[in-house]
Amino acid sequence: MSSSRKIIKLFYDVTSPYSWLAFEVLCRYRNVWNIDPKFKPAYLGGIIHGSGNTVPGLNPSELLYMVSDLILLSEYFGVPIFPPSDLSKIDSLNAMRFLTVVAEREKKGDTLERVSIELWKRMWCTHKDITQPASLTEAGLKAGLSANEVEEFLTLSKSQPIKDKLRSVTQEALDYKCFGLPFIVGHVNGKAEIFFGSDKFELMAYLFGEKWMGPYPNKPTATM
Amino acid sequence: MSSSRKIIKLFYDVTSPYSWLAFEVLCRYRNVWNIDPKFKPAYLGGIIHGSGNTVPGLNPSELLYMVSDLILLSEYFGVPIFPPSDLSKIDSLNAMRFLTVVAEREKKGDTLERVSIELWKRMWCTHKDITQPASLTEAGLKAGLSANEVEEFLTLSKSQPIKDKLRSVTQEALDYKCFGLPFIVGHVNGKAEIFFGSDKFELMAYLFGEKWMGPYPNKPTATM
Repeated sequence: MSSSRKIIKLFYDVTSPYSWLAFEVLCRYRNVWNIDPKFKPAYLGGIIHGSGNTVPGLNPSELLYMVSDLILLSEYFGVPIFPPSDLSKIDSLNAMRFLTVVAEREKKGDTLERVSIELWKRMWCTHKDITQPASLTEAGLKAGLSANEVEEFLTLSKSQPIKDKLRSVTQEALDYKCFGLPFIVGHVNGKAEIFFGSDKFELMAYLFGEKWMGPYPNKPTATM
Repeated sequence: MSSSRKIIKLFYDVTSPYSWLAFEVLCRYRNVWNIDPKFKPAYLGGIIHGSGNTVPGLNPSELLYMVSDLILLSEYFGVPIFPPSDLSKIDSLNAMRFLTVVAEREKKGDTLERVSIELWKRMWCTHKDITQPASLTEAGLKAGLSANEVEEFLTLSKSQPIKDKLRSVTQEALDYKCFGLPFIVGHVNGKAEIFFGSDKFELMAYLFGEKWMGPYPNKPTATM
């Protein structure tokens, strides 16, 4: 069943709130559209560096707009994003390496999704640290990992194979000419179609031959 | 009748293809949503300079993405945008001063809309010059201006009051913290709500209490 579904890769970083929106939409549409989302933890710092881009929101007016845009999107999509007053750059390297371990260990469950959500919640909803081992531990436990698993995953997250894996996923995104996150890749007639940001689902639906039904596709009271 | 409609200001420049998309959508929804769009010719160069921003597409990967995004949007929205192979910056100052004259002379007609479309078509569809007086003349005539009007408008476009008017409209956008075009401003409960780009109509509909029906709101076969 799964093999006949269109594979959609979402490259994301938990320091990107728009990534959370894109992630949520793909989760909600997984059983509505004929798609199989593959969640790919990448490192935003590596994307910015590798593409020669600048971080979003450097311009003061654009930053102001992003905050009001996020507040409105949060309400519309029902995702609890509350931009913190200090939006200075938080490095996500430890968090994304931790998620890389979770992704590598994942079999058929949804642990990666649950841990990712806990990290997004910490950063964008409850405004807690996501850089320290204690913070990653707390997120892992909340997501249903055992204490032993969290400890093992934290150790593994410092290993060379995991560092290399995160680097290779980030490079995979860069190979698609990624310049920021979220970055979504799907194939239509053998051609890689790419989408940047969380405002492209209607266009994606058009290209994929699916129907965009707004942020709540399963609600009978969907607005569209 | 008109006074009860929500005034929506669209600040635009004809060197911005996303402005064309936003313009088209507002035209199509004018009699579908309870809105009264006000088209405000502004100068993108002044917006970029005044906000301290950089022009879009400086990053090579982002530029590649913009081209494929525009081609897809063009097809989806039914607006004939064909990005030229050379996207090097074309200065729109003469064109936007010309449109400022048209806007100032407009009474209740749609001349501003028609001349704007002719200029967008030249730049983004037939890839013709929009900087020289002869080009502006051709666009004006195609849009239905008389030869006398075009001549008068070209002379006026070099006058101080028109230069000042374009500067003041550009400043009006900057006062709303504009950092790029298209930039849309509407008021909800006395608060200015701003939207950047051409991907925000669904969110705008949500905020305005209207229904987004995709790019063809009047077609019975609308996809949404």
